[in-house]
Amino acid sequence: MNKKKIINDPVHGFIRIPSELIFDLIEHPVFQRLRRIKQLGLSYFVYPGATHTRFQHAIGAVHLMSQAISHLQMKNAGISPEEEEAVLIAILLHDIGHGPFSHALENSIINGISHEDLSDYLMHELNREFGDKLDLAIQIFNNKYHKKFLHQLVSGQLDMDRMDYLKRDSFYTGVVEGNIGVDRLIKMLDVRNDILCIEAKGIYSIENFLIARRLMYWQVYYHKTVIASEFMLVKTLQRARYLAQQGEKLFATPPLEFFLYNNITPNVLKENPASVIPHFLDLDDSDIMVSAKQWSKHNDKVLQILANGIINRKLVKVEISKIEFDPPKIDEIIGLISKKEKLSAADVSFLVSTDCIANWAYTDKSETIKISFSDGTVKEIAQVSDVLNISYLNEMVMKYYLCYPKDCGV
Amino acid sequence: MNKKKIINDPVHGFIRIPSELIFDLIEHPVFQRLRRIKQLGLSYFVYPGATHTRFQHAIGAVHLMSQAISHLQMKNAGISPEEEEAVLIAILLHDIGHGPFSHALENSIINGISHEDLSDYLMHELNREFGDKLDLAIQIFNNKYHKKFLHQLVSGQLDMDRMDYLKRDSFYTGVVEGNIGVDRLIKMLDVRNDILCIEAKGIYSIENFLIARRLMYWQVYYHKTVIASEFMLVKTLQRARYLAQQGEKLFATPPLEFFLYNNITPNVLKENPASVIPHFLDLDDSDIMVSAKQWSKHNDKVLQILANGIINRKLVKVEISKIEFDPPKIDEIIGLISKKEKLSAADVSFLVSTDCIANWAYTDKSETIKISFSDGTVKEIAQVSDVLNISYLNEMVMKYYLCYPKDCGV
Amino acid sequence: MNKKKIINDPVHGFIRIPSELIFDLIEHPVFQRLRRIKQLGLSYFVYPGATHTRFQHAIGAVHLMSQAISHLQMKNAGISPEEEEAVLIAILLHDIGHGPFSHALENSIINGISHEDLSDYLMHELNREFGDKLDLAIQIFNNKYHKKFLHQLVSGQLDMDRMDYLKRDSFYTGVVEGNIGVDRLIKMLDVRNDILCIEAKGIYSIENFLIARRLMYWQVYYHKTVIASEFMLVKTLQRARYLAQQGEKLFATPPLEFFLYNNITPNVLKENPASVIPHFLDLDDSDIMVSAKQWSKHNDKVLQILANGIINRKLVKVEISKIEFDPPKIDEIIGLISKKEKLSAADVSFLVSTDCIANWAYTDKSETIKISFSDGTVKEIAQVSDVLNISYLNEMVMKYYLCYPKDCGV
Amino acid sequence: MNKKKIINDPVHGFIRIPSELIFDLIEHPVFQRLRRIKQLGLSYFVYPGATHTRFQHAIGAVHLMSQAISHLQMKNAGISPEEEEAVLIAILLHDIGHGPFSHALENSIINGISHEDLSDYLMHELNREFGDKLDLAIQIFNNKYHKKFLHQLVSGQLDMDRMDYLKRDSFYTGVVEGNIGVDRLIKMLDVRNDILCIEAKGIYSIENFLIARRLMYWQVYYHKTVIASEFMLVKTLQRARYLAQQGEKLFATPPLEFFLYNNITPNVLKENPASVIPHFLDLDDSDIMVSAKQWSKHNDKVLQILANGIINRKLVKVEISKIEFDPPKIDEIIGLISKKEKLSAADVSFLVSTDCIANWAYTDKSETIKISFSDGTVKEIAQVSDVLNISYLNEMVMKYYLCYPKDCGV
Repeated sequence: MNKKKIINDPVHGFIRIPSELIFDLIEHPVFQRLRRIKQLGLSYFVYPGATHTRFQHAIGAVHLMSQAISHLQMKNAGISPEEEEAVLIAILLHDIGHGPFSHALENSIINGISHEDLSDYLMHELNREFGDKLDLAIQIFNNKYHKKFLHQLVSGQLDMDRMDYLKRDSFYTGVVEGNIGVDRLIKMLDVRNDILCIEAKGIYSIENFLIARRLMYWQVYYHKTVIASEFMLVKTLQRARYLAQQGEKLFATPPLEFFLYNNITPNVLKENPASVIPHFLDLDDSDIMVSAKQWSKHNDKVLQILANGIINRKLVKVEISKIEFDPPKIDEIIGLISKKEKLSAADVSFLVSTDCIANWAYTDKSETIKISFSDGTVKEIAQVSDVLNISYLNEMVMKYYLCYPKDCGV
Repeated sequence: MNKKKIINDPVHGFIRIPSELIFDLIEHPVFQRLRRIKQLGLSYFVYPGATHTRFQHAIGAVHLMSQAISHLQMKNAGISPEEEEAVLIAILLHDIGHGPFSHALENSIINGISHEDLSDYLMHELNREFGDKLDLAIQIFNNKYHKKFLHQLVSGQLDMDRMDYLKRDSFYTGVVEGNIGVDRLIKMLDVRNDILCIEAKGIYSIENFLIARRLMYWQVYYHKTVIASEFMLVKTLQRARYLAQQGEKLFATPPLEFFLYNNITPNVLKENPASVIPHFLDLDDSDIMVSAKQWSKHNDKVLQILANGIINRKLVKVEISKIEFDPPKIDEIIGLISKKEKLSAADVSFLVSTDCIANWAYTDKSETIKISFSDGTVKEIAQVSDVLNISYLNEMVMKYYLCYPKDCGV
Repeated sequence: MNKKKIINDPVHGFIRIPSELIFDLIEHPVFQRLRRIKQLGLSYFVYPGATHTRFQHAIGAVHLMSQAISHLQMKNAGISPEEEEAVLIAILLHDIGHGPFSHALENSIINGISHEDLSDYLMHELNREFGDKLDLAIQIFNNKYHKKFLHQLVSGQLDMDRMDYLKRDSFYTGVVEGNIGVDRLIKMLDVRNDILCIEAKGIYSIENFLIARRLMYWQVYYHKTVIASEFMLVKTLQRARYLAQQGEKLFATPPLEFFLYNNITPNVLKENPASVIPHFLDLDDSDIMVSAKQWSKHNDKVLQILANGIINRKLVKVEISKIEFDPPKIDEIIGLISKKEKLSAADVSFLVSTDCIANWAYTDKSETIKISFSDGTVKEIAQVSDVLNISYLNEMVMKYYLCYPKDCGV
Repeated sequence: MNKKKIINDPVHGFIRIPSELIFDLIEHPVFQRLRRIKQLGLSYFVYPGATHTRFQHAIGAVHLMSQAISHLQMKNAGISPEEEEAVLIAILLHDIGHGPFSHALENSIINGISHEDLSDYLMHELNREFGDKLDLAIQIFNNKYHKKFLHQLVSGQLDMDRMDYLKRDSFYTGVVEGNIGVDRLIKMLDVRNDILCIEAKGIYSIENFLIARRLMYWQVYYHKTVIASEFMLVKTLQRARYLAQQGEKLFATPPLEFFLYNNITPNVLKENPASVIPHFLDLDDSDIMVSAKQWSKHNDKVLQILANGIINRKLVKVEISKIEFDPPKIDEIIGLISKKEKLSAADVSFLVSTDCIANWAYTDKSETIKISFSDGTVKEIAQVSDVLNISYLNEMVMKYYLCYPKDCGV
């Protein structure tokens, strides 16, 4: 079989699969399942075009990595063919541990099990299956390799993950001004003392990148309606789990049933991964949607309201505030709903919730952006940019949201 | 609530919802379910970006219809506000009867029930619910209205359905050269004696449109891998149904279970629609995928092979030919597989199949394209274009395909 | 004649000419000459694609103005049809006083005559010719009309001039990340107390707009090579004028000859415009290029070096610094060149120059951006954005450049 | 100096200059002059965005050639580094002999001297200057090299010249549906027996390419208004020349004066190229525009009308017909104008003209497109495509046009 396949990508054009090993990894069921997991979860309720998958994103990130490596090679970064394939594999598999609607799942039925842990576990599994050919990739992924910039290309302020997802999410949502100048940014990449830098003349591109990213956060990732739908999804799963734990017989697809009716903690995963992983790998977006669709007709009113919300886009109201919401206000809302819907306060607590948006944030990557000058010096971006309050950009602005059903009399 | 909403579409930019009634129709669960049905079925196995839904397409077609109407108004086509809203509703709902993977479903578990019949039924249902406000839209949809061009804008050689889907499918697959000049085509639209025409100077745009459409057919809709995966999907459902009819207990989501274990014919639908429609409306892409995922681990070998194919992209081989395949050749293949896999010929017949691609074709719309000249005459496009063999373009080229498992020794 | 013409624009698509009066203004020779004046002067030395003209830009700005007005109308801004046409005319003609390579000309042969004065004069001329139909447009242009937001749409922090030129320059240079979200920005426009505002939820779009604009400044408008070529153009014209004033017979096209051999000051224009304006209107990019082409073979060494530079892209070296260059350093360079080229220090002064980039800046528009909130309040952007140092963005960063011939031994 | 420069192109993105020799050729004044020659002449009268230059086009064609070569290398076409650089140089210089408004010039003042002859001459000149490093490039350009496909990539049915200009002209005019699938076409290129082919599965792309090209011809290159303006330009130059030959003193820039007042024939060029070439190289778009601008105020009424037409877009009327225009009709028109404008019939003949559009056509390249099959066979495209009347596409449709002043009473 010809494994030098070319894939047609609407974002980057033709993408060449760079090696046979990478082709085989893409063909593997563990990777193929990413075709069934949407990159942006329920954001399609706001941006109907945003139905792209983690599969496409991973392939796109491999493409950008190829370009970054070949560009750094021209600057004599001294990357060996083995290192090149390893860093390509690391970026291909960087999201391999994601389940459906990851953030929602992590806050409900697989509480405490992070996708990072799962990625790490699955990479080792694949490594075993592929005769240790992923050793170096795993070292780079886990930042155990001495050439730190290779890890930074996979996971850092300017990694190919971000480059691809910002460009791709901008493309699919139609938020055109979120488009970042990926080609120019890659052209400006540089390596000094094994650390990834941006050439000084790229400072305006970096400013633009950071501001475009911020725009994407508030315009897309933290859009009110996205928060409302993610909230309802979390609560739907929490309610289903609550009912399940009480012995209620609920329809659920087999893998979802597993997680609803068992109590899977990080410890269980750690001690007996083989009892958990197959169920996890069996789970994708369709399990959640299919189950919620049935629940939207369930006779538990709370479950019915919540599931109906994410199936038929009957979403809760969201208020956003820079300060925390007053507990008395929340209690008042709970009281109103309790009365109107004839539900106990405990039940209503599944329909009303306040939280901080930063909880939902993609974990921030700690290191800073370095700028390299032609005289050999390297500076922090905060020392170079005069218009950005970098410190503000770094510490994600805290915003609080309060969700509750519409028409509840508030 | 503000019902003059604007939707962000990556293909057309900002789309304004043209009226409150249309807003309410979009909000209706029967329409919202189109969010869960992909426009191009399993084509994402070839074009990973092609995960767009029928929901987006319908909204996009409404947008193009708005533009077409406002353009025709400037040419004094004399369209009343009521007619305008009606034709917008007709295009909004033109695909309302589609289920998941429509063509595959119609060839397996809902054999003989066409999506056109379902659309018609559902429109009448909505009409009842909305107090007969859809009367005129239904007349136009069913070509019962005297201004024929309004129907042609919904369903005809140059309808807004095609305009949107060709442009959208080109965008999402990344097959850029399939992009058609929608804006120019709409600008060239004209009405003569209540019939839709294209101005003579638009002849090159029309040629381009027809050839781009042909390219999209062979490059996307009839791509070998798409045929392979649709074949496997049909056979998966047929096999599941076959097992179900034999009393085998199969996992299936509730609506899919209904269609697998009952024998729903056009007659049943006709006589007792209320017994069928709710199950149909409950069905979407996720039911099929979730069930196939479980079947891919089933102990019926045939079902397991087929379902695994569409879950993990382990697809059959496809041969394409301009002439029919020899029955002896097919028998030979069946024999080889039968021997290798230790299956009866009857079982193997689910894994091997030959058919004509035209069977899969979007039903062709019979009327021809009319060209209007400034001297008042109107001609058929076949009389005007000197480079296109229109007759060939019209009668869909027959091609035969033969599908069978890889590595079966052929 | 059909004056409801449609123009094909690669940036905005089809553009409809909104009225017959505007059609007639576009047809006028004073406007048609903008077809022969490039928007970005010699920037094509860096960005070969950037050969777009002021004609396209003005038409594009009219298009965006149409959209902005129709959007504000939906928000009940209460704009009359007369006001609408007037503001469209005002934006159409906002650059009517531009000559070829405006900034270079203003610093050499028409020293002191600003394009704003010429625009004002020409608008009044056209008004006379068109029977005072431009009265209101001129009031708006000159900010004499009580609805201030109409002037702000023509000339302000968020005017349609900027919106079009940023988007257009990004498109033609290929600096994709300079692309701004024009559609969203227009959607966010609002009017409070006759002042133009942006709705609060548009804050991220505004940040993005400001940063994209900054990127365009440094990546395009103040690109080193652009500065080098503009410097050489100014010096070419200054040298030609110097030789002309000394009685040297130089080839020049008739309008350029007029400005080289006469001393046209703002006073002359003021007192006897009819003696100046026809020559000015006769001047475009081709006069400068044709003359410089001949001068590149002239026997005055200084003129020859300079003219050859802008014809054959043999540009001077540019150094950029945040602090002023030392006079002794400049003297040293002048000395070296003087010696090498056997030229007097006075002659060499045409080849070496230092200046501050801010001198070249598009004059900044003083008012600030206002943000409107749903509770009725209006705030300055500086109070709302937490990540931008607005004060820094407003006061254009001062940078100094020093230009001198390459290979002069420095 | 770093000669591995990268150029920002709005059509193809970042373009890398492939070698130092190519960098030096681009820097040469003979090539730099292409910056001052628009690719589409006066087409900006219809498509204001179409101000792109031959410079950009040549660089873009080099970029596509790089991609084609690297793609053919992967198919083991066996192209040596020397052949690669030679074919890149050949495409870079393929238009080097073009003057301003080439087709118009060849029909007026440099009658009979083709741009192909000039290209050939200039390449040899450059070869001398560059120490014979262009030997192989010239062989390929002149189809003297045994690997015919290299010439075909420079000049053939599927050459990189066409690929770039169709894509670029589509981009700059905004005729989006003229966009061709360059990336896919290049991917489908193949070589059999040293002849360039397209793989059989690329047949739909080729059909699309041919039809898109046809659309561009009629929508852009042969647009009525383009024909009108090119006609007026030819006649302007012919009239100027006629007056010059009669001893009239006309303003003209030096190189244009040379061609107006001398009689430069192919023979003169052949016998004494050094007397002609420097004047030719001195000529660009600006010479024509600057001179026509002065002529638009000349007291010869015919010259004034014609020159005013191309300066201020006061264009003649154009009739298009599939059959030749009747001489009596033409005589009648001449009579009417003669009377109205008080001009002799001989003078009026500069204002009225009929011709066949095919005269204006880009010379067609005789060889046909070859399709290669996986079984090793190669067929003509006419044998493979069932929907295109290839014979019609090949022989350019003859259309006749008749131009005459508007408002002349016809």
